[in-house]
Amino acid sequence: MEDSGKQVINFAAGPSKLPRAVLLQAQKELLDYKGLGISVLEMSHRSADFVKIINTAENDLRELLKIPENYKVIFLQGGGTGQFSAVPLNLIGLKEEKCADYVVTGAWSANAAKEAEKYGKVNIVHSKLEAYTKIPNPNSWNLNPNASYVYYCANETVHGVEFPFIPDTKGTVLVCDMSSSFLSKSVDVTKFGLIFAGAQKNIGCAGVTVVIIKEDLLGHALKECPIIFDYKVQGSYNSLYNTPTSYSIYIMGLVLQWIKNCGGAEVMEQNSAAKSKLIYDLIDGSNGFYVCLAASECRSRMNIPFHIGNVNGDTVLETKFLDKAVKNNMISLKGHRSVGGIRVSLYNAVTIEETQKLVHFMINFMKEHCV
Amino acid sequence: MEDSGKQVINFAAGPSKLPRAVLLQAQKELLDYKGLGISVLEMSHRSADFVKIINTAENDLRELLKIPENYKVIFLQGGGTGQFSAVPLNLIGLKEEKCADYVVTGAWSANAAKEAEKYGKVNIVHSKLEAYTKIPNPNSWNLNPNASYVYYCANETVHGVEFPFIPDTKGTVLVCDMSSSFLSKSVDVTKFGLIFAGAQKNIGCAGVTVVIIKEDLLGHALKECPIIFDYKVQGSYNSLYNTPTSYSIYIMGLVLQWIKNCGGAEVMEQNSAAKSKLIYDLIDGSNGFYVCLAASECRSRMNIPFHIGNVNGDTVLETKFLDKAVKNNMISLKGHRSVGGIRVSLYNAVTIEETQKLVHFMINFMKEHCV
Repeated sequence: MEDSGKQVINFAAGPSKLPRAVLLQAQKELLDYKGLGISVLEMSHRSADFVKIINTAENDLRELLKIPENYKVIFLQGGGTGQFSAVPLNLIGLKEEKCADYVVTGAWSANAAKEAEKYGKVNIVHSKLEAYTKIPNPNSWNLNPNASYVYYCANETVHGVEFPFIPDTKGTVLVCDMSSSFLSKSVDVTKFGLIFAGAQKNIGCAGVTVVIIKEDLLGHALKECPIIFDYKVQGSYNSLYNTPTSYSIYIMGLVLQWIKNCGGAEVMEQNSAAKSKLIYDLIDGSNGFYVCLAASECRSRMNIPFHIGNVNGDTVLETKFLDKAVKNNMISLKGHRSVGGIRVSLYNAVTIEETQKLVHFMINFMKEHCV
Repeated sequence: MEDSGKQVINFAAGPSKLPRAVLLQAQKELLDYKGLGISVLEMSHRSADFVKIINTAENDLRELLKIPENYKVIFLQGGGTGQFSAVPLNLIGLKEEKCADYVVTGAWSANAAKEAEKYGKVNIVHSKLEAYTKIPNPNSWNLNPNASYVYYCANETVHGVEFPFIPDTKGTVLVCDMSSSFLSKSVDVTKFGLIFAGAQKNIGCAGVTVVIIKEDLLGHALKECPIIFDYKVQGSYNSLYNTPTSYSIYIMGLVLQWIKNCGGAEVMEQNSAAKSKLIYDLIDGSNGFYVCLAASECRSRMNIPFHIGNVNGDTVLETKFLDKAVKNNMISLKGHRSVGGIRVSLYNAVTIEETQKLVHFMINFMKEHCV
């Protein structure tokens, strides 16, 4: 087996690091899943063996997030971006006005709001932010009581802004893109009409998107909703209306078991608090050498974008930082192309020890380059 | 590594058998792709390493099918069923009438035609077939000269009907669902406006769908087309507008290399002709013990559904056949739930030797049960 033995630490924003135990099990079972003589990669999605894999994944997810019986759990293709369309296609027709409220706190919620305009009226509930560094005060939100739903993104990966609270919608259905913070903490599912999350951050590899939806919201899809995105159809077929990305569901199942073995969502929450605190404490104590723009009350535990040298970033220093990090086997630390700088992503599979190694590296880099 | 050593032969209709060489390479590289110290499962889709994987897959596909420069190759999520929506969403607006011609020769083209009705007018070009056992004579087709496109399914997996010719559309754009016969033979791409194919039959695992589209057809998507299905957007982003199913693209790339190493589409064509002939010759010589309903001129090389004992199938014999096959390590031979009976799928990764083993088994079974 190939294993260069490199101790690479992968800080990618997604697809991102998987637990070593999951990769080892996937490798072990790749040719021959549980003595069947075939790989999960070549297994019929209609076989009893695959149905067991998908059902176990669903049950583990239900257990980890205490998902109530009156919520459907659906596994879809198309990623979070697919859901930017699927959410309005399924829900904007809930009320006659075909209007939806959007909270736009970063690149992803902005994209979601733009996509929803294809299917109805979109109301951004606050005045446009000059920069995506904070969450507009909920008291100032202009919610439309006739909106079919209120939409927000729990964690914005590009700008590193995370909601520290669940919005109060005054009774309107709440929809949340939880892609990048899903299962990094426990969550009260009953507050939501719908939660969706791509797996490739905290719970698996790319190719599967989890949708958790309250059953009474099913059956309102617009006529033009592609059948693979129709929650009612997919829900009634146990996510097997058509061939799913079976291998990604298998990997997700392995990660969910790993989270259970680690102690569940609560332990992921403790770890992510500890990991992000290590980085933010260093940034805050760096006397402006490292600069994080997100307001302290809504700093992301998952993605920490920062600049080096000054508020806009000293590109010479930042390039040096990234080069040196790679030499130290720390990869995928480059900020999103739209904001530049550095970004550290600390999803579930990144360990506290690995985060400490990065902190150590950052301290040394600062000592070398700070006068 | 787990490998029960069982010589299982997987005749599944998809997801289906992968070449052993591909699985061995995937296993070898699972923890550490080419010395990078990370798995493809956790690799950023924006990394240079992944861009190389996806570009190599595209180049190999272009070489294998001699795809001209003026065609885009796009890799999407959502499977063939996703394309049942994406095709009309992108192409039905090509002409003002928003009408499309469909040839319905089995379950999949029927589903595609039904889905297209969400987006425009659908014209089935022939009278409804009583049974999906033949291709209606093209001279009888009632093509609409104002149709935006003519759609057909090259191979119907449920009923085992395959087009032995490429339809002449009298100048209208031709669209083909080639999911289950893709790269099982060479094909003149220039005859088509669009070809699509899920990977999980002949070229990989589930999670990626290939779309080959003539460039001058881009840019006509309906307003309500979900952005992940917009061919123009995905084409201009090299299939990376959003996170793709990266691992499925990697596996597809390995299969494409394997096809190249085997000698290309022409060799796959020879093999599939030889494999399917072995089974059909046995059926034809069985004196009615094995019954195949598809008309001989359009019998599928890929999927061979048949009954045992009589035209409707003797369920006792068929159950015995399936049980005994499993005991002989031949799996996934059960016919589709809508037609029952037996189905043998002979995609690229199934070898001639494996097909001969099945023939041997079928001969013995016939000897035992035929008076």
